[in-house]
Amino acid sequence: MSIITIVGAGMMGSAMSGPAADNGHEIRLVGTPLDREIIDSVRETGFHPTLHQQLPAAVAAFQAEELDKALEGAELVIGGVSSFGVDWFAEHVLPLLRPGVPVLSVTKGLQDGPDGTLTPFPHLLAERLPEEKRGMIPFNAIGGPCICFELLERRHTMVYFCGADLAVLEKIRALLSTDYYHIQLTTDVMGVEGCVALKNAYAMGVSLAVGIADREVGEFDAAAAEALCTPGAPDRNPVYNPQAALFAQSCLEMRRIVSLAGGDGALAGELPGAGDLYVTIFGGRTRRLGMLLGRGIPFTEAQEILKGVTLEAVVIITRVARALRARGENPDYYPLLFHMDAILNDGAEVDLPWSKFGR
Amino acid sequence: MSIITIVGAGMMGSAMSGPAADNGHEIRLVGTPLDREIIDSVRETGFHPTLHQQLPAAVAAFQAEELDKALEGAELVIGGVSSFGVDWFAEHVLPLLRPGVPVLSVTKGLQDGPDGTLTPFPHLLAERLPEEKRGMIPFNAIGGPCICFELLERRHTMVYFCGADLAVLEKIRALLSTDYYHIQLTTDVMGVEGCVALKNAYAMGVSLAVGIADREVGEFDAAAAEALCTPGAPDRNPVYNPQAALFAQSCLEMRRIVSLAGGDGALAGELPGAGDLYVTIFGGRTRRLGMLLGRGIPFTEAQEILKGVTLEAVVIITRVARALRARGENPDYYPLLFHMDAILNDGAEVDLPWSKFGR
Repeated sequence: MSIITIVGAGMMGSAMSGPAADNGHEIRLVGTPLDREIIDSVRETGFHPTLHQQLPAAVAAFQAEELDKALEGAELVIGGVSSFGVDWFAEHVLPLLRPGVPVLSVTKGLQDGPDGTLTPFPHLLAERLPEEKRGMIPFNAIGGPCICFELLERRHTMVYFCGADLAVLEKIRALLSTDYYHIQLTTDVMGVEGCVALKNAYAMGVSLAVGIADREVGEFDAAAAEALCTPGAPDRNPVYNPQAALFAQSCLEMRRIVSLAGGDGALAGELPGAGDLYVTIFGGRTRRLGMLLGRGIPFTEAQEILKGVTLEAVVIITRVARALRARGENPDYYPLLFHMDAILNDGAEVDLPWSKFGR
Repeated sequence: MSIITIVGAGMMGSAMSGPAADNGHEIRLVGTPLDREIIDSVRETGFHPTLHQQLPAAVAAFQAEELDKALEGAELVIGGVSSFGVDWFAEHVLPLLRPGVPVLSVTKGLQDGPDGTLTPFPHLLAERLPEEKRGMIPFNAIGGPCICFELLERRHTMVYFCGADLAVLEKIRALLSTDYYHIQLTTDVMGVEGCVALKNAYAMGVSLAVGIADREVGEFDAAAAEALCTPGAPDRNPVYNPQAALFAQSCLEMRRIVSLAGGDGALAGELPGAGDLYVTIFGGRTRRLGMLLGRGIPFTEAQEILKGVTLEAVVIITRVARALRARGENPDYYPLLFHMDAILNDGAEVDLPWSKFGR
């Protein structure tokens, strides 16, 4: 039995308590300042109000100001913040980490530099460690198709853990692997994290086709939009050839971008790329954004409709397009990405560049 | 304007009349002896009874015994038979082909040899040409995600045309390309046709997860099974993590098999592999078979339920597993394929080999 501290009580981080509990660990779930109500609820009843599920009994909940106490004796720290919480994590959590205790992040995203480099979060966190701890904390990350509700329901789920040191990854896998949580290991952090970030971008791209088709058969109303983005709900206008073409184009562009950034591009056609893209298209906020845009609703209006929803796809599309431009890359090599960037950032109308698609 | 003769009046072959008609060609649709009623219907009213759609007015329909007349002056022959019609095609059509007139096949499948070689249909047809015509007919094929109904409805559709000679492929593309039918070209016949055949096998594999999930929430009845395999219909138990893991495993194994057979394995993560797998999972007979098996129904019973439905997935799984065994390949490198083979051919129960999945 080990102590595992999850920092950030969002849905994905909290769901990691499932396999951790099934392995008999002591689990401490610490909220960020934005998670106060979640922590109150988990403390009182064990119920996670955004996951709409009961967390395992082994979970003890801590408010942000108890972070120090929650990290005491932890053998693994799971970083459960979204990409929008990374600064908070760097400022408040990094200084408290004990040398040698690994971090495993669920955070998805890439940071672009002025020269067009794309940096995944494990590398960014390593750079932001206080001077005296540099190189002493192994940062790792999770990538691959994992809907948090399903993990907590013990559905078969297969993911990658990536990090610089295979021995550390083996140790983390031993803590979290179960007969339903299947974990692949790789030291290719850029390969996995590149795919993980990009799949949000491209899930919006594939979902444009959902909106284009839906526009033909029904007026826009919020209830229909909601239904159309609920996993398993009926499709008002099932049209799949364009979706499939966009899916394939997405895999192709992901491969090119990941390779360019120094990762193994083949992963774009495997679990972290194609596999994760597959689940991301089936429902949720990224599909919803793509669907609204595909219906012809301008991004500014779509933002109003989706008010309050974090749009990681928008951030990643903007950053990656900017990075590719900074590198002087030919935009025709990434036509779907640049079209999405134009829709989001230049007010362009949806008009898929079919003739540019393909190898 | 050219004369294009489509031989085989199945759904996919017949749907090719859509882009051909939009380019102003004269189209002759010739039925096999099994297509008699389809041809009667198209002749009388233009209505295709299995596509449930009206064919373009430019289509003239011919019965099998008029094959000779229908091929007269044709500048392109589209092979529209299924893999079960290849012998008929070889026997009756090949002897009538004029040297220099290219053939473009929609037929999907691979033939395995005793030494474990896997041969795609364009190569098989070339071998079966009468002696005096050897090397004089360019055989080509289509691969990629294309639901026939959607092509006929002018939905954006992106496919590969593959064949030995790029100049011939360019010529065929010029005949059939439209503003909605987007055609990529490649000389990698094994790469494209390997993916095209294998995606049927693996669509059954991913669909096992649909059946496993459905078993939890509902009794088996034919109407529910039908609904669950109709594209766009609601899912009784939407569970996606296992599907996504199987999707990724499928891409991985397709890549390995295509590479082994001498094709470009990267295509398995692109349009002919991942893209075509995506549409094939959304509905139809292959999903239906996988779903039934996933529910725990033995293959012998599933065959009864699906009586009359051609099961290309069964043929391809059996052949490819046999070929890999003949080559002495390690089955743990293709765990999903060999599990599917055991389910179909050894009466094995569905018990996905999760621990063997991944790189």
